[in-house]
Amino acid sequence: MEQLKPQDFPALKNDTFLRAARGEEVPAMCLCGCMRQAGQILAEFRETRAAQDFFASCRSPEVCCELTLQPLRRFPLDAAIIFSDILVIPQALGDGDSAWSRGGGPVFPEPLKGPEDLQKLKPVVDVSEDLGYVFRAITLTRHKISGRFPLIGFTGAPWTLMTYMIEGGGSNTMSKAKQWLYQHPGASTSCWQLLTDVIVDYLVGQVAAGAQALQVFESHAGCLGPQQFADFSLPYLRGISCRVKKKLKADGLEQVPMIVFAKDAHYALEDLSQSDYEVVGLDWTIRPQEAREKTGKRVTLQGNLDPCALYASKENIEEMVKKMLEAFGCRGYIANLGHGLYPDMDPEHVGAFISAVHKYSEKKEN
Amino acid sequence: MEQLKPQDFPALKNDTFLRAARGEEVPAMCLCGCMRQAGQILAEFRETRAAQDFFASCRSPEVCCELTLQPLRRFPLDAAIIFSDILVIPQALGDGDSAWSRGGGPVFPEPLKGPEDLQKLKPVVDVSEDLGYVFRAITLTRHKISGRFPLIGFTGAPWTLMTYMIEGGGSNTMSKAKQWLYQHPGASTSCWQLLTDVIVDYLVGQVAAGAQALQVFESHAGCLGPQQFADFSLPYLRGISCRVKKKLKADGLEQVPMIVFAKDAHYALEDLSQSDYEVVGLDWTIRPQEAREKTGKRVTLQGNLDPCALYASKENIEEMVKKMLEAFGCRGYIANLGHGLYPDMDPEHVGAFISAVHKYSEKKEN
Repeated sequence: MEQLKPQDFPALKNDTFLRAARGEEVPAMCLCGCMRQAGQILAEFRETRAAQDFFASCRSPEVCCELTLQPLRRFPLDAAIIFSDILVIPQALGDGDSAWSRGGGPVFPEPLKGPEDLQKLKPVVDVSEDLGYVFRAITLTRHKISGRFPLIGFTGAPWTLMTYMIEGGGSNTMSKAKQWLYQHPGASTSCWQLLTDVIVDYLVGQVAAGAQALQVFESHAGCLGPQQFADFSLPYLRGISCRVKKKLKADGLEQVPMIVFAKDAHYALEDLSQSDYEVVGLDWTIRPQEAREKTGKRVTLQGNLDPCALYASKENIEEMVKKMLEAFGCRGYIANLGHGLYPDMDPEHVGAFISAVHKYSEKKEN
Repeated sequence: MEQLKPQDFPALKNDTFLRAARGEEVPAMCLCGCMRQAGQILAEFRETRAAQDFFASCRSPEVCCELTLQPLRRFPLDAAIIFSDILVIPQALGDGDSAWSRGGGPVFPEPLKGPEDLQKLKPVVDVSEDLGYVFRAITLTRHKISGRFPLIGFTGAPWTLMTYMIEGGGSNTMSKAKQWLYQHPGASTSCWQLLTDVIVDYLVGQVAAGAQALQVFESHAGCLGPQQFADFSLPYLRGISCRVKKKLKADGLEQVPMIVFAKDAHYALEDLSQSDYEVVGLDWTIRPQEAREKTGKRVTLQGNLDPCALYASKENIEEMVKKMLEAFGCRGYIANLGHGLYPDMDPEHVGAFISAVHKYSEKKEN
């Protein structure tokens, strides 16, 4: 297959998402790609995924493109998010051979046991070489989208990536990773600095490849308290947004809106709204009004229906969406779920959620 | 062994904990039993526990008494919490034979698959018969304590118990249990009403047996949002405190302070402080000042050092405790961790935490 170049992309015909992300007035509120797990509820997605192992899927631009577009064929969404995984960076920092698997969740094959294991990581990652497969997937997908909606790139944030690198998989308490914060603050800092350097290059590379917005997932913020988040997560989240924006400018690339989602970091909303991100994602434990009060008019808010609400009847879903849109108000808002979908959810109920967002957001404008 | 009766208990010589729980002025701030997992870091505890399976431990008053007292022999704590498990109630509602196990966490052998499975539960539980082993453990332990400190009883709250009954074990998302909230609200309500009835009798029975304070654990509050908590958890938490107090009065029993701990329910602190509990427990994601603002002077606060802080050096633990005590202030406060201990923690660091609490709380009084 001829490799497409990251240039001469088709003109964007639907910029609702990007304008909402920038806080501009939009004709209707809009909807992101239901976050990254949207595809897994679709039979066609599971079939494509099952054809090869998870890491092989992530490394194939054609498979990533197909998996990215499948939910968009089913649902009238206003943005696509590239199919990939947050563990591509830890993988690139490793020996290059060890992959990870995903059964009930990600499993990282050779977790860091102590600070001395940091020596085993590559000191520098050449993102073009080690993560070029993601860039190629973005370029291909952006071409295939033909300008119908923008394409969002993403990464995991340093603390979240480090939890996987230390825990080796999911954990309720993250106690091994948190042990590092208290026992090895210096080594932890080195690890985050290394991760931040890679993340910055990786995100800029995604924009160069065609990403039109960027999302940073701090999925494991909730096991940190306010002080630990301020010490060990926020500085790196801020470093990422600041350095990405500078580097985009230096490289002559377009500035793109950046989204930060720190799950369960209810205590940090104010700080997150002052961290050079255009959009702050909210989980479903946050009251809309409280989020508005804490973030002022500084950012666009994205969220936050409980994903499990999609188990409800379609009528009840519509009612909950209506209530959510009324609570957040029209301006500076991107309707979405408060976290990803679960595999056993009914695609028709996702459809009901999306229809309800369109129905009530358009109504508000009249 | 002669069975001790729940009467003629030795006089209580240290009522600091009970007075602090009631918001009275105390000579020093005090410390609860480091929550229920305190024992598992001790070699003697693990040895006693390993001698029989978990359920057998819970059913033996002598073993429960020994496991309750072991942490108290090591550490100068101001209260003991009875060794037991929140799953004793789901077990009592089942066929009476099936037990549960605890490896990485509780595993419930025959989870509820749908509302029809509620028919399999006993419609009424005679707590004296089915949970009398807990009462006997409390009576024995209270006698053995010889009035050195008060003994706390506890239960899981209805929503948390129901998550175990449906999920069958731990879960990151609790999506099966949450599915019930959206698809079977009627059946969920029946289940909570049944659980609430048992819990009320169970707590009153604990006081009759000798418990001097009661704690209600809503450990899985965090997967509910504000609206769901208000609809599906809070009414039952309030029902429990209100009915227990009434029944204690009707039965001519002493009123005891009640503690509620709804982990990760940052959005519900104000409501919890108006729910007829004397003490509200806090996890470590809550800022002390914010907790004070939201709860006024209505309740005593208990918490909330990050348990992982015990991985830090003893000097750093002391520093963190000092900061915590200063932030919460002296009155209406019970120093504690924000959740239970993890098995790999060093008993000496728990000792450092407790010493620091005593050191700085006594200092504040001068």
